[in-house]
Amino acid sequence: MKKIKRAIISLSDKENLSSILKALNKYNIEIISSGGTFKEIKKLKYKCTEVSDYTKFPEILDGRVKTLHPKIHAGILSKRKNRLHKKQLLKNKFDEIDLVIVNFYQFEKVLEGSKNRSKIIENIDVGGPAMVRAAAKNYKFVTVVSKVEQYTELINELNKNNGSTSLEFREKMSREAFSETAYYDAVVADFFNEISFNKFPDRKIFFANLVEKLRYGENPHQSGAIYSREKNLKIKQLGGKQLSYNNYNDIFSALIISKSLPKNTGTVIIKHSNPCGVSVNRDNIKSFKLALKCDPISAFGGIVACNFKINKKLAVELNKIFFEVIIGNNIDKDALKILKKRKNLRIIDAESFKLKNSQSINSNVNNYLVQTIDKNKFLNKNFKVVSKIKPNKKTFESLLFAFNICRYVKSNAIVLVNEDSTVGIGSGQPSRYDSCKIAIRKMKKFQSFYKNKKIVAASDAFFPFVDGIESLVNSGVSAVIQPSGSIRDKEIIKFANQTGTVLIFSKTRHFKH
Amino acid sequence: MKKIKRAIISLSDKENLSSILKALNKYNIEIISSGGTFKEIKKLKYKCTEVSDYTKFPEILDGRVKTLHPKIHAGILSKRKNRLHKKQLLKNKFDEIDLVIVNFYQFEKVLEGSKNRSKIIENIDVGGPAMVRAAAKNYKFVTVVSKVEQYTELINELNKNNGSTSLEFREKMSREAFSETAYYDAVVADFFNEISFNKFPDRKIFFANLVEKLRYGENPHQSGAIYSREKNLKIKQLGGKQLSYNNYNDIFSALIISKSLPKNTGTVIIKHSNPCGVSVNRDNIKSFKLALKCDPISAFGGIVACNFKINKKLAVELNKIFFEVIIGNNIDKDALKILKKRKNLRIIDAESFKLKNSQSINSNVNNYLVQTIDKNKFLNKNFKVVSKIKPNKKTFESLLFAFNICRYVKSNAIVLVNEDSTVGIGSGQPSRYDSCKIAIRKMKKFQSFYKNKKIVAASDAFFPFVDGIESLVNSGVSAVIQPSGSIRDKEIIKFANQTGTVLIFSKTRHFKH
Repeated sequence: MKKIKRAIISLSDKENLSSILKALNKYNIEIISSGGTFKEIKKLKYKCTEVSDYTKFPEILDGRVKTLHPKIHAGILSKRKNRLHKKQLLKNKFDEIDLVIVNFYQFEKVLEGSKNRSKIIENIDVGGPAMVRAAAKNYKFVTVVSKVEQYTELINELNKNNGSTSLEFREKMSREAFSETAYYDAVVADFFNEISFNKFPDRKIFFANLVEKLRYGENPHQSGAIYSREKNLKIKQLGGKQLSYNNYNDIFSALIISKSLPKNTGTVIIKHSNPCGVSVNRDNIKSFKLALKCDPISAFGGIVACNFKINKKLAVELNKIFFEVIIGNNIDKDALKILKKRKNLRIIDAESFKLKNSQSINSNVNNYLVQTIDKNKFLNKNFKVVSKIKPNKKTFESLLFAFNICRYVKSNAIVLVNEDSTVGIGSGQPSRYDSCKIAIRKMKKFQSFYKNKKIVAASDAFFPFVDGIESLVNSGVSAVIQPSGSIRDKEIIKFANQTGTVLIFSKTRHFKH
Repeated sequence: MKKIKRAIISLSDKENLSSILKALNKYNIEIISSGGTFKEIKKLKYKCTEVSDYTKFPEILDGRVKTLHPKIHAGILSKRKNRLHKKQLLKNKFDEIDLVIVNFYQFEKVLEGSKNRSKIIENIDVGGPAMVRAAAKNYKFVTVVSKVEQYTELINELNKNNGSTSLEFREKMSREAFSETAYYDAVVADFFNEISFNKFPDRKIFFANLVEKLRYGENPHQSGAIYSREKNLKIKQLGGKQLSYNNYNDIFSALIISKSLPKNTGTVIIKHSNPCGVSVNRDNIKSFKLALKCDPISAFGGIVACNFKINKKLAVELNKIFFEVIIGNNIDKDALKILKKRKNLRIIDAESFKLKNSQSINSNVNNYLVQTIDKNKFLNKNFKVVSKIKPNKKTFESLLFAFNICRYVKSNAIVLVNEDSTVGIGSGQPSRYDSCKIAIRKMKKFQSFYKNKKIVAASDAFFPFVDGIESLVNSGVSAVIQPSGSIRDKEIIKFANQTGTVLIFSKTRHFKH
């Protein structure tokens, strides 16, 4: 237990200051402060010594140098039981400072709201982190409070121990303080790396805020949590059980596709983080029904994401099937009422969710593969028609739709499309030919009359042999889009021409593992 | 351009100090220093003012308070063109400090080498980061050097500009300085979180060191890099082209399996980050051949990892197939010579690579799903034989082997095994039944006489219906291991008993997406 006699307070965010002052006053804790915090404390009518009076050194450089003074830092850093330290404090007429309450200049907030470089940089706090780090290092004797959210904890601790804090408490505060300083400098470093387009610095620091701890990870014997670079996830749960790790994973997989589709048309069904049905039909009911038809068996227990508002009529259709999660770009009242009839169904409004340029991390045994995401928008110049037969506009659109879906299907990926909907998806195979077979089997199983329909196919990477494209064409595919690059490209073009197949080569490949 | 007149130097790592001193001396730069650095500078016979002489304040608290003084920090932080700042410096008889050369107490290094809590905490640097952060903030005027690796850059910059530094240079140094401080505090925060078993703190900070920038990411239009929490990856490339993003991804996928297999027996073949063949035969040549036989077509262009030393005889076998990467637990000289005949083949010695307890990160649009890895060792009590027929020891071992591989195959995962080798792997499907079909098709395609062999199967999660297990049994599978949990578990047990199939329920599920 450590009795607290003296505190230094320096706050950028002055919220709830009075609650703290009341508690400190109750235990006769002497307060040192400066600048705006000092003024605020005086305004609230509490006793307080200004830092410059305390150190006998004026605040200078517009406040850049206030607390960076030996009297403050020795007061924080001295080992209370060390005789030499005690002697040196005494000799210099320094007092021990037992409690440091500091929150930093709000760099992250300023960064969000301003593009003024000078203003942003002025908001890098120097004095605050120095005090917090000193106090956190010396947690055996000193209590450090580094964010407003800790005030109640501090007050409870003081009340519990009659003005003292326990070592356990101080260690916890210290741990959280170093998280704050690390996070703070991670944001600053990220800012500098951003403005200088330095994607892969020597030291890479990813930082994020806890959104919630999850019941467990991918499996019940693993523990898990969801974090965000932002304050929240921009998705709103309107009903159902708590989201699980796998729910979140599938929700993001769904939204990344859904939000990339033409507005107000797209339905995506996800199972095991792979799409098992996608449609962009303008009729919302049809859009859902067509997405579902691609693989109604796999859809069972899956996740549906609509990039349009879910209305009552659609809700009735959705409720016919067992889904784990339903996501809408807004959900109207009547629809919500209907969906809520399924007690466990997680209902998500993702209207505020936006795709953002970000880096992806693939972690393996403490190693991280980091990359920019596959975000290229397809332009006409990305493609070259290499077959004699040219696609008409509608076929080209279907091919583009198929190719776009391909990039979200785990490799090797084969996507079969009729008009505006997938009719067969082959994923996650070590051989491209196998993915073709899977996609074809799905189509044959669930699409009656597929033989009378125009079927197009996309492949996320080139066909290494003719056999893959051959199996597609033999099953009724009349147009294929794929990246070029195989030593057998010519054979493949020849095969397309022999069979009257439209063949388009893309300049970009789209592996996803 | 900013002429440098005065520098402060405070180093924990004194490597290459003389090179810096020589350069500073050349441009008549005044030096301030303290403690061990001061002594070292004097020993090297350069002029230097001790901090305590400079500030007229003694170093106290065993060096805990040296540079935390207004004269130092105002000297660093003053805006050179600001008249008020100038006046205040003058009034206090403070001088401008233009260059800060600091490296921190080596917390990370001490942490690796010591378990003494006091010693570790004593090595949290307070004064150093305060100076570095002040200088980095004021980069418009001040140059900050925060690691030994930057010395040459500084010297070149000074030489180029006759003792001055450019704004561009100072900004770069500032950026790198904040990376250093963020990294430093991330390591400290991680230490505190570790010792208090706090897996999911409010602020999560992942930190890693750049190993190398890669030619590109998963696809050529993405940029990528590989980072490690450690100084290096513990894998040694002995030949072949530069490793790509996908190579690394596959190598880790391979090693995570390979290193979990019984020593000196395991061969793993990976394609698109999924295993397409695994064997643990004690005869190394057989081990490779059996792994290959599981899917020799998919193995083409894949990655082979052996958890044993690759000898000449095996090298000859390996060279018959086109692989992108070959990994050995050491590779003998003769074998290396043979493997090197394939010019582009990447050859990796992974003897030093060890599996480590770590957290996995799944990143999605600036959100991170974080979890502990699926590292449970299987114990006998994890399993329950639920069929009437009980497995003999050999069958149980095969089942356990199959179940172990399952956890590394993307869900839904079905793994068929004969004795000590996989003979069919179904992966990445939205429906478990489809994964069964894929695994069976592989077996039928590549395993002659499979009907005469004892085939066992593992599933990463429970069968929701009887159809999956039915398809396996109908294709010759005589023993199945799977997690329990389906509402149809009883039906499945009944089916097993009716068909004389061994059925084991596992307590743990092993999704991997």
